Amino acid sequence: MGLSKESVSRYFQRLQDDICNSLEELDGKGKFHEDKWNRPDGGGGRSRVILGDDIEKGGVNYSAVHGAMPEKITNALGINPCEFYATGVSIVLHPRNPWVPIIHMNVRYFETSTGIWWFGGGIDLTPHYIIPELARDFHNHLKKACDAHDMNYYPRFKNWADDYFFIKHRDETRGIGGIFFDRLQEEDGHTKESRFDYVKEVGESFVPIYTHQLSKTREMIPHEDNHTWQRLRRGRYVEFNLVWDRGTKFGLDTNGRTESILMSMPPQANWVYDHKPINDEKAQYTLSKLKKGIDWTTYTGAGA
Amino acid sequence: MGLSKESVSRYFQRLQDDICNSLEELDGKGKFHEDKWNRPDGGGGRSRVILGDDIEKGGVNYSAVHGAMPEKITNALGINPCEFYATGVSIVLHPRNPWVPIIHMNVRYFETSTGIWWFGGGIDLTPHYIIPELARDFHNHLKKACDAHDMNYYPRFKNWADDYFFIKHRDETRGIGGIFFDRLQEEDGHTKESRFDYVKEVGESFVPIYTHQLSKTREMIPHEDNHTWQRLRRGRYVEFNLVWDRGTKFGLDTNGRTESILMSMPPQANWVYDHKPINDEKAQYTLSKLKKGIDWTTYTGAGA
Repeated sequence: MGLSKESVSRYFQRLQDDICNSLEELDGKGKFHEDKWNRPDGGGGRSRVILGDDIEKGGVNYSAVHGAMPEKITNALGINPCEFYATGVSIVLHPRNPWVPIIHMNVRYFETSTGIWWFGGGIDLTPHYIIPELARDFHNHLKKACDAHDMNYYPRFKNWADDYFFIKHRDETRGIGGIFFDRLQEEDGHTKESRFDYVKEVGESFVPIYTHQLSKTREMIPHEDNHTWQRLRRGRYVEFNLVWDRGTKFGLDTNGRTESILMSMPPQANWVYDHKPINDEKAQYTLSKLKKGIDWTTYTGAGA
Repeated sequence: MGLSKESVSRYFQRLQDDICNSLEELDGKGKFHEDKWNRPDGGGGRSRVILGDDIEKGGVNYSAVHGAMPEKITNALGINPCEFYATGVSIVLHPRNPWVPIIHMNVRYFETSTGIWWFGGGIDLTPHYIIPELARDFHNHLKKACDAHDMNYYPRFKNWADDYFFIKHRDETRGIGGIFFDRLQEEDGHTKESRFDYVKEVGESFVPIYTHQLSKTREMIPHEDNHTWQRLRRGRYVEFNLVWDRGTKFGLDTNGRTESILMSMPPQANWVYDHKPINDEKAQYTLSKLKKGIDWTTYTGAGA
């Protein structure tokens, strides 16, 4: 029989609890507000939002939904009508300080009544200003987590993240990427259990990764110009999520709970026509590095 | 032979000039900045942006682009490969004062080398706070412009706007609607010339309509709460344009000029998780009226 959907979803609930506890402790001020919700067609979730000190606005969602698979999805996947079950944890944290990066994490499990199942997930970082050492730390942290399970994971999932977190109409990556993976099934010598072990490792690496990134940046003093730049980058984050992110689009298209889906929106975003950061070298440097294919694990280039 | 694409596009250029001149005069402070741009595959445009006093951020775009019709469009329309020509004027104005409505106008003409042509366009209003008398004035102004050409235009195009400017994931209309029309061809007793006459009437009604709306609201004194609400409504505007607006999606998907397409973005937008305007009756009233099917031309209900 093996791993049941119930045990995956119980694990995801505990993961949400652990991450929320850690983030409250890390922030020192904000407390999560929880909304429990039910999906009319089956299942539900726990949406938690924090308005904190370091974390200006953050969302940590858990959900486990089930029901008849929408026809447009069975068609798209080329499978027969069936029931589905989907559970996961999803996080976006928007920091107050523009020197602190925006972080996103997702782990998810999907199965059908006809025996199909897979895991998906990822972690990616969107610094308003790229700091080379911290970009390197971030990717090495992910690489280590991946390498413990499969030496092919990091290179594959790093490239996948570059392709996924790409703002096509800006010809920019959303940030410095990270890892993204989907449809991890029983193949390449992996079992359901070993896939799950990997997903757990990704989920549990979130807090140490964010703790490190935050501790290195939270004391940096922002100027008003840095906040202005932050709000413009948050505009790009909105553009990615609303125009390109398949998860967001799928949720909005299929009558998901809008407030839970759009917890990823920043508290504030600005748009300035044809903006160029002519007096901000660190912003220029950042723009020059929002590209696919940079090997951040060995990046030794100087910052701005 | 009749009306040529060149004469339509020349008219749209003059319309852009006239509207920009009127808006500068109306605003009293802002001046349009113009960027001329070329489309690599044919044609180009003139994007004009104003950062004014009443108009915090406004864009008035003219374009005339041509080239080989993208295959995915010929497939979608079920027509043979051909050349296309598309020209139009597009406007979005975001006012500084939350009592002044956001306004949008578009007029456009499309033809193919195989002899297909049509006109499209519309005007719609997004008040941050709905003021019943001004909603009535707006729709009556549009109705009058429509009725001069075809008594069926206003009812048809009013419903079309209700359906088009709809934020499905919020179950809200974007604002109080207006008129929206597309693919007006030679039918129902209309000629190319009579369709064009109507489109001209729509284009030329923009300035009087906005002048009236602005003159009735510009002196109203906003409180900080009203600005907070305005930024949340601007968030909804962003959601509509990036998630649902077909014009925006088409442009971003087909490598249009991003900065011209996204001139419709507000200067600033905010998101608050699960916000409800519990202490703002006028905001509550507004939300209660963001519905399809309201006959604003005869609306006599009191405001908040």
